Amino acid sequence: MLISLLALLAGVQAAPAPVLPSDAIAADWRPIPDDEVMIITLTGNRSVVIRLAPRFAPEHVANVRTLALAHWWDETSVYRVQENWVTQWGDATEKKPLAPGIVPSPAPEFDIAAFDAAQRLTRRDAYSTVSGVTADGWPIVTDGKAAWMPHCYATVGVARDALPDTGSGAELFTPISGAARRLDRNYTIVGRIIEGMKYMSGMPRSDAALGVYATEAERTGIVSVRLASDMPAAERPRFYYRSTDNPRFAALIRLRENPAAPTIGLGGVDICDLPLATRRAGVK
Amino acid sequence: MLISLLALLAGVQAAPAPVLPSDAIAADWRPIPDDEVMIITLTGNRSVVIRLAPRFAPEHVANVRTLALAHWWDETSVYRVQENWVTQWGDATEKKPLAPGIVPSPAPEFDIAAFDAAQRLTRRDAYSTVSGVTADGWPIVTDGKAAWMPHCYATVGVARDALPDTGSGAELFTPISGAARRLDRNYTIVGRIIEGMKYMSGMPRSDAALGVYATEAERTGIVSVRLASDMPAAERPRFYYRSTDNPRFAALIRLRENPAAPTIGLGGVDICDLPLATRRAGVK
Repeated sequence: MLISLLALLAGVQAAPAPVLPSDAIAADWRPIPDDEVMIITLTGNRSVVIRLAPRFAPEHVANVRTLALAHWWDETSVYRVQENWVTQWGDATEKKPLAPGIVPSPAPEFDIAAFDAAQRLTRRDAYSTVSGVTADGWPIVTDGKAAWMPHCYATVGVARDALPDTGSGAELFTPISGAARRLDRNYTIVGRIIEGMKYMSGMPRSDAALGVYATEAERTGIVSVRLASDMPAAERPRFYYRSTDNPRFAALIRLRENPAAPTIGLGGVDICDLPLATRRAGVK
Repeated sequence: MLISLLALLAGVQAAPAPVLPSDAIAADWRPIPDDEVMIITLTGNRSVVIRLAPRFAPEHVANVRTLALAHWWDETSVYRVQENWVTQWGDATEKKPLAPGIVPSPAPEFDIAAFDAAQRLTRRDAYSTVSGVTADGWPIVTDGKAAWMPHCYATVGVARDALPDTGSGAELFTPISGAARRLDRNYTIVGRIIEGMKYMSGMPRSDAALGVYATEAERTGIVSVRLASDMPAAERPRFYYRSTDNPRFAALIRLRENPAAPTIGLGGVDICDLPLATRRAGVK
């Protein structure tokens, strides 16, 4: 029913949409460096793109880059999809030797150095006291003592054993629901999925322990994982992020917090539901 | 890696687990009435069970019950799966006449009568000022003036057109990510999925407008929708909810807020990540 009405409205609205104070201008879109863009190609030509966060987890991202440059993930798989929790990928056998140059157990990078928000949110969340977003589009939170990136939907975290310093970056996961905020400050975050999250979230869940597929047949094959900077220049996908240190983004947040009638405004926006945008060059 | 260690620990832990202060006792489990249990059977013998919330949305739940008793949803489908948003089901053609006795446009039941929390949470969330849970296990929030049920993952909401009073209950949706909290106070909630959510969340996303499958072939068929009270007594599944008005549930919340080392505690728990439990009779 909603659908038919929207289709109707779309038909009526033939004129181009006006530019709103909350719309981005060209200068708001800033390039993501090629060595911060990592492309996972799944079987079936499905592509999942990760924006890496070297500023926040330098040692783990260094490992991730080394693994990608070594083509270490080629022919590995997505081997765990646990309902209301995470999708995880890497070497399901846990026996593949890591690439040369990898630090097997870097120190945890759970917290970030500072809470440096270009935009602050007006309402608190359950796990922190202040939340906001960096100028380059990363959600961050603080409890006044420490600061960290929250485990939002589509965040990419480093899987590990029970002890904190046991994740190399070879096994990665992404939250497929909001429940993973519970992992905040307990896992290292190396980036965020900016394209193709639908493939990671839409896979069949496993009822086996921890959601690890009980059979090889259930897994989704990883064809390759590449840094954009490692691809021939002509083939590189290029991405831009929408910067937040400008009045247009601030207006967008205010609009989210207080939408136009007949929508009833809630006066807030969740740190994990910020309208953080990225764009692939050549795609609107 | 996490997995192999847990498997190891499981091998060591041969003795039965001790009863903790946060564990439920038998009396904490209370029956869900049969007319508050609705079973959706999808093709492939997949069953999705909804706990209805007649106390909070009496008119819409009356419609839902009438539709179920009329077997109105039989041979309809899940026709919309929008990434990071919702899965929606009902009559994709939007042309099927509603069952006799249906109120086509009941008044919105976005808000509930009162904030009556058996357990309050210690931290706020982005969309409200106080949150908590009713004795019978429904999450609720308030801004001090109104009270409502939040659009948590697996909540069941009533789809509608742009105007607030345009949802009958024939088209229903469930959030498949945390983003749907934005719908709070704007849609009527009729219940929560307590079993089989993995089927609703794990379906392929559609790139078509609003995530509505562009072709019939993409849809998932609904074989039947039945109230447990409408089934022969011997075939009825019976469900229990874990009550929250007791010190054991309070201890469970405290444990979530302040977990044991080496986990770093966050001092809070999200209203949508409460350990609200239900149980099917005969299943541990």
